[in-house]
Amino acid sequence: MKPALGVCYYPEHWPEEIWAEDAARMVEAGLTWVRIGEFAWSRLEAQPGQFTFDWLDRAIETLGTAGLKVVLGTPTATPPRWMVEKHPDMLAVDAEGRPRKFGSRRHYCFSHLGYREESVRIARILGERYGRNPHVQAWQIDNEYACHDTTVSYSAAAIAGFRNWLAQKYQSPDALNRAWGNVFWSMEYADFSEIDPPALTVTEPNPSHVMDWRRYSSDQVVAYNRVQAQALRPLTDAPLIHNYMGRVLEFDHFDTGADLDIASWDSYPIGFLSDRLEDTAEHKRRFLRQGDPDMQAFHHDLYRAVGRGRWWVMEQQPGPVNWAPHNPAPLPGMARLWAWEAIAHGAEAVCYFRWRQAPFAQEQMHAGLLRPDSAPAPALAEAAQVAREIEEMPDVTPAQARVAILFDYPSSWAWETQPQGADFDYFRLVTEVYRGLRRLGVNVDILPLAGADLSAYKLVLGPGLFTLPDALRAALATHSGLAILGPRTGTRTPNFAIPVPLPPALPGLDTTIALTESLPNGAEEPLEAGGCIGRWLERLEGSAEVVERTTAGQPVLVRSGGLHYLAGWPDPEAMVRILRSACAEAGVATTDLPDGLRIRDTATHRFYINYAPEPLNHDGVTVPAAGVTWTPFR
Amino acid sequence: MKPALGVCYYPEHWPEEIWAEDAARMVEAGLTWVRIGEFAWSRLEAQPGQFTFDWLDRAIETLGTAGLKVVLGTPTATPPRWMVEKHPDMLAVDAEGRPRKFGSRRHYCFSHLGYREESVRIARILGERYGRNPHVQAWQIDNEYACHDTTVSYSAAAIAGFRNWLAQKYQSPDALNRAWGNVFWSMEYADFSEIDPPALTVTEPNPSHVMDWRRYSSDQVVAYNRVQAQALRPLTDAPLIHNYMGRVLEFDHFDTGADLDIASWDSYPIGFLSDRLEDTAEHKRRFLRQGDPDMQAFHHDLYRAVGRGRWWVMEQQPGPVNWAPHNPAPLPGMARLWAWEAIAHGAEAVCYFRWRQAPFAQEQMHAGLLRPDSAPAPALAEAAQVAREIEEMPDVTPAQARVAILFDYPSSWAWETQPQGADFDYFRLVTEVYRGLRRLGVNVDILPLAGADLSAYKLVLGPGLFTLPDALRAALATHSGLAILGPRTGTRTPNFAIPVPLPPALPGLDTTIALTESLPNGAEEPLEAGGCIGRWLERLEGSAEVVERTTAGQPVLVRSGGLHYLAGWPDPEAMVRILRSACAEAGVATTDLPDGLRIRDTATHRFYINYAPEPLNHDGVTVPAAGVTWTPFR
Amino acid sequence: MKPALGVCYYPEHWPEEIWAEDAARMVEAGLTWVRIGEFAWSRLEAQPGQFTFDWLDRAIETLGTAGLKVVLGTPTATPPRWMVEKHPDMLAVDAEGRPRKFGSRRHYCFSHLGYREESVRIARILGERYGRNPHVQAWQIDNEYACHDTTVSYSAAAIAGFRNWLAQKYQSPDALNRAWGNVFWSMEYADFSEIDPPALTVTEPNPSHVMDWRRYSSDQVVAYNRVQAQALRPLTDAPLIHNYMGRVLEFDHFDTGADLDIASWDSYPIGFLSDRLEDTAEHKRRFLRQGDPDMQAFHHDLYRAVGRGRWWVMEQQPGPVNWAPHNPAPLPGMARLWAWEAIAHGAEAVCYFRWRQAPFAQEQMHAGLLRPDSAPAPALAEAAQVAREIEEMPDVTPAQARVAILFDYPSSWAWETQPQGADFDYFRLVTEVYRGLRRLGVNVDILPLAGADLSAYKLVLGPGLFTLPDALRAALATHSGLAILGPRTGTRTPNFAIPVPLPPALPGLDTTIALTESLPNGAEEPLEAGGCIGRWLERLEGSAEVVERTTAGQPVLVRSGGLHYLAGWPDPEAMVRILRSACAEAGVATTDLPDGLRIRDTATHRFYINYAPEPLNHDGVTVPAAGVTWTPFR
Repeated sequence: MKPALGVCYYPEHWPEEIWAEDAARMVEAGLTWVRIGEFAWSRLEAQPGQFTFDWLDRAIETLGTAGLKVVLGTPTATPPRWMVEKHPDMLAVDAEGRPRKFGSRRHYCFSHLGYREESVRIARILGERYGRNPHVQAWQIDNEYACHDTTVSYSAAAIAGFRNWLAQKYQSPDALNRAWGNVFWSMEYADFSEIDPPALTVTEPNPSHVMDWRRYSSDQVVAYNRVQAQALRPLTDAPLIHNYMGRVLEFDHFDTGADLDIASWDSYPIGFLSDRLEDTAEHKRRFLRQGDPDMQAFHHDLYRAVGRGRWWVMEQQPGPVNWAPHNPAPLPGMARLWAWEAIAHGAEAVCYFRWRQAPFAQEQMHAGLLRPDSAPAPALAEAAQVAREIEEMPDVTPAQARVAILFDYPSSWAWETQPQGADFDYFRLVTEVYRGLRRLGVNVDILPLAGADLSAYKLVLGPGLFTLPDALRAALATHSGLAILGPRTGTRTPNFAIPVPLPPALPGLDTTIALTESLPNGAEEPLEAGGCIGRWLERLEGSAEVVERTTAGQPVLVRSGGLHYLAGWPDPEAMVRILRSACAEAGVATTDLPDGLRIRDTATHRFYINYAPEPLNHDGVTVPAAGVTWTPFR
Repeated sequence: MKPALGVCYYPEHWPEEIWAEDAARMVEAGLTWVRIGEFAWSRLEAQPGQFTFDWLDRAIETLGTAGLKVVLGTPTATPPRWMVEKHPDMLAVDAEGRPRKFGSRRHYCFSHLGYREESVRIARILGERYGRNPHVQAWQIDNEYACHDTTVSYSAAAIAGFRNWLAQKYQSPDALNRAWGNVFWSMEYADFSEIDPPALTVTEPNPSHVMDWRRYSSDQVVAYNRVQAQALRPLTDAPLIHNYMGRVLEFDHFDTGADLDIASWDSYPIGFLSDRLEDTAEHKRRFLRQGDPDMQAFHHDLYRAVGRGRWWVMEQQPGPVNWAPHNPAPLPGMARLWAWEAIAHGAEAVCYFRWRQAPFAQEQMHAGLLRPDSAPAPALAEAAQVAREIEEMPDVTPAQARVAILFDYPSSWAWETQPQGADFDYFRLVTEVYRGLRRLGVNVDILPLAGADLSAYKLVLGPGLFTLPDALRAALATHSGLAILGPRTGTRTPNFAIPVPLPPALPGLDTTIALTESLPNGAEEPLEAGGCIGRWLERLEGSAEVVERTTAGQPVLVRSGGLHYLAGWPDPEAMVRILRSACAEAGVATTDLPDGLRIRDTATHRFYINYAPEPLNHDGVTVPAAGVTWTPFR
Repeated sequence: MKPALGVCYYPEHWPEEIWAEDAARMVEAGLTWVRIGEFAWSRLEAQPGQFTFDWLDRAIETLGTAGLKVVLGTPTATPPRWMVEKHPDMLAVDAEGRPRKFGSRRHYCFSHLGYREESVRIARILGERYGRNPHVQAWQIDNEYACHDTTVSYSAAAIAGFRNWLAQKYQSPDALNRAWGNVFWSMEYADFSEIDPPALTVTEPNPSHVMDWRRYSSDQVVAYNRVQAQALRPLTDAPLIHNYMGRVLEFDHFDTGADLDIASWDSYPIGFLSDRLEDTAEHKRRFLRQGDPDMQAFHHDLYRAVGRGRWWVMEQQPGPVNWAPHNPAPLPGMARLWAWEAIAHGAEAVCYFRWRQAPFAQEQMHAGLLRPDSAPAPALAEAAQVAREIEEMPDVTPAQARVAILFDYPSSWAWETQPQGADFDYFRLVTEVYRGLRRLGVNVDILPLAGADLSAYKLVLGPGLFTLPDALRAALATHSGLAILGPRTGTRTPNFAIPVPLPPALPGLDTTIALTESLPNGAEEPLEAGGCIGRWLERLEGSAEVVERTTAGQPVLVRSGGLHYLAGWPDPEAMVRILRSACAEAGVATTDLPDGLRIRDTATHRFYINYAPEPLNHDGVTVPAAGVTWTPFR
């Protein structure tokens, strides 16, 4: 199947007179998909029950007859003002107990059953009207769950829901008290109605309490998404999609993904570099107008897993955005490069956000493919180039990766709850492993813990996993390839207690974490083989074979057969060395790539992707600055 | 007219026995004005309607018979405790909805009509009693509007007032929805009563919403000031004054100024350097005990504009203050230098704050002309020296400046609402232009946008203007001198939308901002002619003549005839070069001043003002450290 | 008397089956004391009035018969959930008016009389049951007062209490208005009921208001502690103890100490280094796994004063903790070193916290003497070694120090209220003086201001004292030794006003603070004799003999006879020089110690304590890294 390009469009923002010309220009640029409707509730239902669909009918007709396929969004991320009047208690409430006000978006609480019902209602009405419309070939449910920190709400609805959820889970207060260890500070409850969210306590609340609160909050996103999906299913055969975000881990995307057909995400490489990447000032300067060379690829691989193989980029940055601390423009070529990187990772579609820059409201400084005056913005020509190149090149067929990283949303919640070191961050740990593999030119699959099939992988990495489920423990015991778990992996029970016997307690691997240290900057422990361990260091005991040790002789990487445990957080040098060596032993080919150049292999092509601001050469292939090129694979 | 010196005095703080001696010492030091009364409400009206004026009668009599002219303040910045009891809802409310408590000052909400009436009442009562008193020769209304971030309040009174203000402005919710672009995220309103202040939203509110809120809040200061002025007008012929502050832009001072006779401001050069100046650590160290060499001059020029030519320094720092992060003492000479700088800029009066350091309450660490034990503090002798020098020198006659900077308070609100780059600050941009001109020894006038008469100016600067009013656009089209607008100037409609055709759309100048970038530190773009552009860079299109470009060839300054557009934020080197070159072409003489030395020309004298801690020489004139000297002009 | 070791134990956390073995292992390790019970309220009284003492009876019996002495805690730091149901208004309230929630500890407000009564009730019930139990040989009241910033609460109970306290103190609103200087900003009150806590004011409240609020808050801790002590006194002859903390100054420990028999504190050297020590990055790296070389000693000396000679370490860090920004492990030897340092300072007991690491709840990452799996953690062997060494060595007899530092909790509140310079911190100032003396190998006593007997001391230091009580002023006038007061000492009246005549107004010393400066980093003033003054510099006038001056000639240290006034904050070089010189004159022997080595003299031994990570040599004695050694004294 050939990948496709698309764009996000807001007919309600523009005079109807220009819709047809807009559609024609989209088609001319080689775009196939057009996403619409996801913020239009106030234009569809201006007052409760008073619907106005004619404009949307005509917009879909105009776009469809021009040759475009429509992704229709349910508009539930932006409940209109009257909805807040109708359900005043639907507003999300922050940790300090303040209801959030109307006037932007995502102001609803996932736990509010009244709003959940309203969301089902509008989804059903849209499904009934457009579910069989031939131009509507996909649906997007809501928009960017969790955006603006909206997963967790402290509303009355959430508090009631949490108590009920706990009652279902534990059945008795005593069972909960035992599971949480509430004896610790006389925190024992006699009734579920006594339990509040873990906020505004004098000092830190019980981590078990927090973890259940985080699980509950994630479950509400899942439940909310599910009822909309269930409403649409009988009404359409088109696939259901949600557009996730970058570096958002507040709810379990694998859980929502299970109810949908396709995962998509909104990729803003330059905004993310400015806003949510820890790295050196030098790195940030070098990739200022390109974005980090690995963050897009990581999310592509992650959402491929969330979508069980089917995934899109629903929003692709086309130029400067409006929301990062600083908002530079992409280097010429980046709007093409990002699209190709997605395609090389298996994206079915890449949609640019947005068609025409809106001259009004919150995102007026967010670039589009057109300027506000309808003149082409720089990305339009690059999108058109990608469309032509897709047309001209033979199909891109995916290849099976041989290296996998186990990824787990609850682990992120756990270590946010208990960082123990101020700079211990699960996402950062995982992506530093991922970056190490990318620097070696290795394709990676991301795997969820539940039902992970390791059989295809010669090397499996499991950094920072909160718990190690029994099934996974068993799979590791029989896995024929290499596996490197740790640091911190399997160090807690699901109830957030330290297991006894002490972790990691891996099958056949005689190693025990006797003591754990978190270390500030400047207190790194150098390794015998070069590089160092910083931030996190576990002291191991046991007879396992030592692979790496500090210059002081402390074991840092131990193994038994293929199963390894890594007892610290390696710096980039040590990370790459450890990974290179493991790949070599596992029979996975590696290559040392220059800074900014990346490789992605499919079954048919090797893509060379150059994030650097200067041309780079590798394997005799020269790639221009901000350029992509490809060669037939092998 | 000779300038005069004065001092701020609090007879209610001291035993009546020492008033006469204090007055005699003031006169002996050459002081003419004495400001009193602005915080004394609880001593004038201890309980509602129970007045005690005898002490104030005697204080005015004592000061007046000693030869001093009194500035009498209305005490409305410090409503007494009983007022809060009487009007519990008069308290200012912060953005999180918390009423501010009694116990300091400025705790009232400008929107509260009940308190507004109480303020009129006390002003009228004072006016009736002292309006024709021969010793009361000026009035100060309230004290330091906006101090401690008090312009904007989220009280019930403010919410009601805002809705009414919006209804007056837009007449219908639909008109407001269209003006704000509320279709964007289904933010449309059906009734004005649905609209809240733009606070506590989940993510950023609509910038049009914020901008109207800021305008509304500024208008309440104006209305509050106006009713006090209207109360006093019939009762006195003395001029009405308000004492503004440094780097406070939360309300439109031109609007309040229109209702008053004289603008004054409170000048704390060393406090401002520590508390509210962005500059290098080296610069801050060099001017630690002198204050920044340009901040006082900028405010002098600004308040001369606000006062339509008539202005004072109402409070002049005499020694260490109590409120900055660090509070060093001025170098010997600075209390004289600051006064002369004000006089050279046309101040009618300079009043030191305060006469005797109070040993109690909030400002006990704020120096005065006397120590708490009544011994002279260092500034007393310097003030006396200034008084003698004023007596001895011929009158200082103002000169017409040939260079003007257009200044606009709403532009500050606009870019606070939408900085787009984390470090884009309107005040900083304007004052960096101002500093560039000061380093070249050029006199500058500040002009408001409304009714700006450009005819006297050979060079007009308009950096960072939110909108460009039609009248100003027309004036620029026919202006015979040079003008440099930008960056960001005229890039929004009054409704806070991007205009189409795209900005800047200047008369006769074919240049269009195709794209805008905000840039972090370290991502500066060097210019061909030296220096660089940082922080903000607009990509221009069009056929206009290019004056400056980046080393990559991107135009940064373009022109047609005398009209220029500057598409970025120059560093100091580039700023001075651009300004020097424009002055040369415009026929404005410039000179390159050593670091810390400044020149101010009047029609009769050239003042050399040395902020440096070492003597400096220029044009054969040597100025001691922290010294001022003057020569007959030309 | 020989010092003893002990441990903190939580029988309620563990199956009863292992209590006896735990007890046996404690005894085997040489431990004598075991503290229990201080968080167990919900296990003693699961519902109001329903008591369960059998498990505690058996625990005490088991521990006691094994040979251990029990410290029994009153469990009032952790009121159970039902208590909050019973007294909903007992919760502490923060400065923004938000009640703190149940779910951690210390959630009560000290002002709440209902909870105070409940605390007396449980203390009395425990006293009645265990007051004469032969195994219970000491009592701990509550746990870590003030921990998690809990001294000050803004509850309704606190507001009512504060008004009553003010009425008692001032008798009339007019007297309060005069004392506070409320005329300043019309802040005058007509009734005590009008006075709120000094929070949420628009700008800073009156410092006199804040100071009384701080005194009131401290007094509530004292009152709360006193009623528990009074409840226990008739029921037991065992000593009453509280366990204080490090760098906690929010209440007056001398006042609580007066009602108790022994002071104890909780010593976490590595956590404190990470969490609450201002020092260079280099210093923090060097002592990362040892803790600062002086902070423990300072608190030992402080709590010896609070306990009027009798003091313990109630909690001694045994390994990594869970609560600091980073949590490294101690170097081998530190768990011994810390114990010996305490013993050398006169501790009667050192108890490690805790016996076995809890695998659940908030402190699961806090190390113990045992790991969660009951295997020995590294500190167990070190504790056992200390126990053996105590056994083997002759008794350690205290020596009388010849140098004293005057220490005053209200001074900390005062300068927090009015820092005047952003980095002026009373604790830091005092401990920098202390560190200077420690670097010179000098024993120090800490003295409270009230009733301080100076006669034993050849040198008395009084840095940063808010007020100088008359009795102390008189004692200094007749003191035969040297005294160095300042900076900032005696610069306020008890009402928080500047006294006239101006400070310091010391007996026989003609020096007056004419002006005060706070200085930012980089603005230090070098001294003629080397080193410099930073942060704080007072300008002195008068005829006193000048001992130290800046290179600009400004006096910084002046004297008359033995009485000195220090007018600034010396850097380490100047501090040590000034102290060395004063000691020399006073006849106190000094020695220059290498970085990290410290000396503590008793009447019988000189202890050499090496905090450095490498061996150090002094006086021919070599001390291993993280080692302690001792020689017979003189």
